[in-house]
Amino acid sequence: MIGYQTQPVEIRQTPGGTSVVDLNLVVPYAFQSEQGETLQGKAFQTVTLWGSMADFAGQYVRPGSQIFIGGRLQTDSWEDQTTHEKRSKTKVVALDMILLDPKDGQVPMPEAAKLTLSAVNRADVVGNVTRDPEIRTTSGGKQVLTLGVATNDRWKERSTGEAKKRAEFHNVVIWGALAEEVGKVVHKGSRVFVSGRVQTRSWETQQGQKRTTTEIIADQCSLLGVRNASALEAVETSAQRRAAPRATPPAADAPASADIPEIQYASEVKVEDLPF
Amino acid sequence: MIGYQTQPVEIRQTPGGTSVVDLNLVVPYAFQSEQGETLQGKAFQTVTLWGSMADFAGQYVRPGSQIFIGGRLQTDSWEDQTTHEKRSKTKVVALDMILLDPKDGQVPMPEAAKLTLSAVNRADVVGNVTRDPEIRTTSGGKQVLTLGVATNDRWKERSTGEAKKRAEFHNVVIWGALAEEVGKVVHKGSRVFVSGRVQTRSWETQQGQKRTTTEIIADQCSLLGVRNASALEAVETSAQRRAAPRATPPAADAPASADIPEIQYASEVKVEDLPF
Repeated sequence: MIGYQTQPVEIRQTPGGTSVVDLNLVVPYAFQSEQGETLQGKAFQTVTLWGSMADFAGQYVRPGSQIFIGGRLQTDSWEDQTTHEKRSKTKVVALDMILLDPKDGQVPMPEAAKLTLSAVNRADVVGNVTRDPEIRTTSGGKQVLTLGVATNDRWKERSTGEAKKRAEFHNVVIWGALAEEVGKVVHKGSRVFVSGRVQTRSWETQQGQKRTTTEIIADQCSLLGVRNASALEAVETSAQRRAAPRATPPAADAPASADIPEIQYASEVKVEDLPF
Repeated sequence: MIGYQTQPVEIRQTPGGTSVVDLNLVVPYAFQSEQGETLQGKAFQTVTLWGSMADFAGQYVRPGSQIFIGGRLQTDSWEDQTTHEKRSKTKVVALDMILLDPKDGQVPMPEAAKLTLSAVNRADVVGNVTRDPEIRTTSGGKQVLTLGVATNDRWKERSTGEAKKRAEFHNVVIWGALAEEVGKVVHKGSRVFVSGRVQTRSWETQQGQKRTTTEIIADQCSLLGVRNASALEAVETSAQRRAAPRATPPAADAPASADIPEIQYASEVKVEDLPF
């Protein structure tokens, strides 16, 4: 996402001495309504920075700074100590950050700029659907579908080297024609790719307390693991390859796909390799 | 991107003993034409995997496997030894990979699936414009703009720990109303965020040799480093903060933005932290 920091940056330290910063970004965005209108809005997003990235932000990020953040969505849940309600808050844990302000300060907005001011607020998720999608029709006659998608985040504990795993649950909202189709073809257990903007909405409990819910408003939902006839035309099978003269034959004893252990795999390449 | 592997996987070893695999993916995609039609196409993309990710692919990726790849675009250039022409090829260097096939094999395509079959082929680039954009009008009367964008990739050499830097150049193509606006507000030196699909097209030299060029066909181009009045309304300035009673005052001696050294910053967090 690309946003503007709204507050002075405060660094805090974990008991282990690691710096942590919570940025509070405003992310202006534009999107197309079902009617084709361009609507504008602002999203607010908490972004947590760790380690030397936090120190860097403490030194150089100021209120109004424009920042690019790449990272993963994380929802923290807890029980309210007085009401015993379940509470949760979704934030972005930053994996990379770019300060976007020119060295001599932000430049004025060019007069012709309109489409080129569109901001970046996007979450991409590959995960499993946790419950059958629910579709309902708004009073205005529009279809809206809600979907739960779980992703598995994996990482190594830096101090112990221990492999850690955490399931992350995402609330996904889909509108219109895509909602209708997803309602038909996606079920509990389906594997999907979901892409959309992250939006936090506020609501009030019956006791008048303010609560927030963070959702991915998806404009793409692709069903994964399905046979795609058009793509398979381009696939050169092992058999075809074996028929042609070759120096290194493909492994004929490659394991069947049923033997594949873990289907998620991360590189050993450091995040420093990332282009931004 | 999400694609299907087209060939049997072959592992090779660098002289240093690191495994390398080049995947050849077909990425079926759909996009909206200027006229609002949904057009379908297929992109072919080479993806390079290193280290244990390459070994993993050698063991589990088969022709037809569906795979999610995240990574960075890299263009390798060389001089043709006979013609002394400059040649180049753009590939994706994978930073993460997910095998998408269900353990018991791909499922048949649901009959209602149409929008949910849309594939993923997207490159996001934050970089500097290397030359003034060129706009021309096609014979059909459509505006098309070409743009050069440079990104700085940084990484640490794994063996020596040496900090490395490499400029990467991207060819960007923009159509329609966005092209027209970009032509007005973007100039050499502008900082932009570009998002679009990666497409490789083939053409022939005057000598009849086949050549390929890889471009990002962008549907978003955002001008960065500009003042955004709407966003700035949400910014709480240091002065406002200081006026309110606070426990920790913001650093009054924060450096001016002119002092910011390097505006690109990568986390120490390992890529294992990535959600996919």
